[in-house]
Amino acid sequence: MNSKPIGVFDSGIGGLTVVQSLLRRLPSENIVYFGDTARVPYGPKSPQVVREYAAQDVDFLLSKDVKMIVIACNTVSAVALDVVQKHARVPVIGVIQPGAAAAVKSSTRKRIGIIGTRATVNSNAYTHAIRQLDGEVQVFAQECPLFVPLAEEGWIDHKVTEMVAKEYLFPLKLEKIDSLILGCTHYPILKNAISTVMDGSITLIDSGEATAVEVEQLLDKHDIRNPSRQRPNLQFYVSDIPAKFAEVGERFLGQKMGRVQKAMINEQ
Amino acid sequence: MNSKPIGVFDSGIGGLTVVQSLLRRLPSENIVYFGDTARVPYGPKSPQVVREYAAQDVDFLLSKDVKMIVIACNTVSAVALDVVQKHARVPVIGVIQPGAAAAVKSSTRKRIGIIGTRATVNSNAYTHAIRQLDGEVQVFAQECPLFVPLAEEGWIDHKVTEMVAKEYLFPLKLEKIDSLILGCTHYPILKNAISTVMDGSITLIDSGEATAVEVEQLLDKHDIRNPSRQRPNLQFYVSDIPAKFAEVGERFLGQKMGRVQKAMINEQ
Repeated sequence: MNSKPIGVFDSGIGGLTVVQSLLRRLPSENIVYFGDTARVPYGPKSPQVVREYAAQDVDFLLSKDVKMIVIACNTVSAVALDVVQKHARVPVIGVIQPGAAAAVKSSTRKRIGIIGTRATVNSNAYTHAIRQLDGEVQVFAQECPLFVPLAEEGWIDHKVTEMVAKEYLFPLKLEKIDSLILGCTHYPILKNAISTVMDGSITLIDSGEATAVEVEQLLDKHDIRNPSRQRPNLQFYVSDIPAKFAEVGERFLGQKMGRVQKAMINEQ
Repeated sequence: MNSKPIGVFDSGIGGLTVVQSLLRRLPSENIVYFGDTARVPYGPKSPQVVREYAAQDVDFLLSKDVKMIVIACNTVSAVALDVVQKHARVPVIGVIQPGAAAAVKSSTRKRIGIIGTRATVNSNAYTHAIRQLDGEVQVFAQECPLFVPLAEEGWIDHKVTEMVAKEYLFPLKLEKIDSLILGCTHYPILKNAISTVMDGSITLIDSGEATAVEVEQLLDKHDIRNPSRQRPNLQFYVSDIPAKFAEVGERFLGQKMGRVQKAMINEQ
């Protein structure tokens, strides 16, 4: 059981930032990753469609005999956590709860900002999670729909990205937030542009990092850590264009990723 | 037969610019439109996946008993025209051939530029179509992946859009093209930004307008024009979020669009 892989999935390539955090904290764990590149992005789509896709993604990971499922995608975590939990017969963790907890812990003036896709922001999932932890926190949410295509295109340190960031983040600056949740797995690679616009005066919360901490706790709770000291086995699957995923993915993963395979997923 | 609707489909909302051209030229024709908003965009995806989706989209239109099919999507026209033709038992027209013909006709110095999605540009479909019409034309193609999300977000007369256009179009300016094919249905609504960057010194070719001309010829050839003088019946179907489509769509269609319905499409 313990040497079985952890399953991680995302709408596309962004979830590799979560895998990077997992590899740093849990260097012995085997991982199977699935990115739904044939249907990316999930962020502008309806909760109903995202729930349908999430169920199919989980079925694929279960077919790989995973011991735990990490929902790397904020949009899925926000609108379909229950679907995934119902489908899976293994422990499931999303990125919302860990991100919210890390933000509450970091916040000094109890003014927290959240940026994410339209679906994530409209779900109010982060706001609910934060309020359950501390009812006094004020939460300010902002959707940033162009961040995903900019990150996917690799326009990382580009003047256009800084201008877009300025426009999106201006309302949050006015609210004098002290912490900002990067509520989409694509956003950590735009950290520089976001920091520059926010004057570096606030704490950026990477939900992926916070999630890796909770994954470790969950492994211990269920006593399913991989005791092996060997290099872990990493498997990457996508539903479309493995070659582009391998090429762009290294920037998100922070290391070489080896072979990426095409997955056949079952659309009902 | 003649009062049956023309079927038009696209990956999402962009194809409404083609519908606008059809309505202007053929004000008596009934139209059924399908936009695959649950899987938009098609442009960054593989030909194989686009072909699979196109076959499903056509099946939906055929279930509405259409007399002709217009592939409004450049990406589908570029990589899946044969799939649609094989599936349909009615005349089929894509936007590539009409756009290419219009560009060749307009070009004075035989230097034509094409902008489109990654899939459209990589297919070389426009280049092949132009070369078949005139072997002496020089063709310069440029992919513009951020134009679709910018148009979908409604950042039409925005400084960011102008900057992005500058970056994409600079190589085409250097090549001293005299005509530029807007090889994606989203691009006509960015006409202003594109013209500004190109100094207005070139002719912009809207493939949708060119396609409407050929649709008229095809109706006459098959003798299936709708003789009615009544206001046409327009039906709009999407695979996700009809409300957003109705809201953003009016800008693309150029008029009020009435009810938008959710379509159930059959994914194999």
